[in-house]
Amino acid sequence: MGTFHYPNGKKAASAVQTQRSASPSSKKDVSYGNRGMSLEEDINQSNQFYLLTERAVIHKKPTPVQIVNVEYPKRSAAVIREAYFKLASTTDYNGVYKGRYIDFEAKETKNKTSFPLKNFHEHQITHMQQIVDHGGISFVILRFSSSDESFLFDSSHLIRYWKEQDIGRKSIPKGEIAEKGHSITIGYQPRLDYLQVIDSVYSFPAH
Amino acid sequence: MGTFHYPNGKKAASAVQTQRSASPSSKKDVSYGNRGMSLEEDINQSNQFYLLTERAVIHKKPTPVQIVNVEYPKRSAAVIREAYFKLASTTDYNGVYKGRYIDFEAKETKNKTSFPLKNFHEHQITHMQQIVDHGGISFVILRFSSSDESFLFDSSHLIRYWKEQDIGRKSIPKGEIAEKGHSITIGYQPRLDYLQVIDSVYSFPAH
Repeated sequence: MGTFHYPNGKKAASAVQTQRSASPSSKKDVSYGNRGMSLEEDINQSNQFYLLTERAVIHKKPTPVQIVNVEYPKRSAAVIREAYFKLASTTDYNGVYKGRYIDFEAKETKNKTSFPLKNFHEHQITHMQQIVDHGGISFVILRFSSSDESFLFDSSHLIRYWKEQDIGRKSIPKGEIAEKGHSITIGYQPRLDYLQVIDSVYSFPAH
Repeated sequence: MGTFHYPNGKKAASAVQTQRSASPSSKKDVSYGNRGMSLEEDINQSNQFYLLTERAVIHKKPTPVQIVNVEYPKRSAAVIREAYFKLASTTDYNGVYKGRYIDFEAKETKNKTSFPLKNFHEHQITHMQQIVDHGGISFVILRFSSSDESFLFDSSHLIRYWKEQDIGRKSIPKGEIAEKGHSITIGYQPRLDYLQVIDSVYSFPAH
């Protein structure tokens, strides 16, 4: 039978890391949102840092999976034997910061001059508009991986480009992102200090 | 090969329903949080209603799954061939309502006189305390399935009982839940109108 891994939080998390780094080749055809692993890692590390230093409570949502078949072996945990990746109907990250609801998606591109809108899908854009309508803070973190530049870009801008793509561009020029968005400093702890940017862009209730 | 289900949001959601209702017997040994399906269905329906009527944006997080092995067949979507259910490190539901961050867990019991604390785990209690500390609204929805009564119970009370269980009770008496909590009306649309209770219990920023 080999070793059995009981699915507790700790072990599972480290197993994910192992799996990811052990089989990079199997990831190359994946197109449902697992690209941009290094941006994801930067954000997860930053969120962990924010949690430990009591600055914010922001988590990545689990990957949505459609479970089709589950085995229930005796004396051990249930094993999912057939499942498929689902398209997310919301964004990947959300939580609370200084009493406000925070919601965002993170994507990176290898393009050098613009960010392709195909990195998002209709459901996510609709979700972002809903968050804005209900008084939440909604944005995307966009990374140009070739130059390692990351920007916080408010959803209102993204939504406008999304709506205009039928008659306009299929991507957002980098110059527009740099102008309307906000550069995020890359550091050590946290690796991507996006809360610092949030502080300068959004308003918060007085304490 | 049989029929192939492409994992888009719509189809996947209905497939979950089918799978769940088609194999109730396979669920009986499940102990990682999929109990209380009918409470979950009530809440999902209510959240859907709130979303459509533009009252709030609250979603259930996907079930956390530890993926161990994935097949990448040519010309069709990736198939997860080995995966395990993970313990959630947060709560199941969160979102935004009237500008405030909302976060909760929902559980039901067959017990008639008290609610067992074993329905929760340490990570979730820690998460609830963090949400409170950062100005979010944090509560649990507790259902006594035999009498079909549901209560909104603020996390501060749950956390207190949780901390006292080493020297005290392993469950919360129903009388305490009825006294410190708030009964949630069961209806048709929405089935469980917990926002009505939230309005009467928590304060919101003026518009």
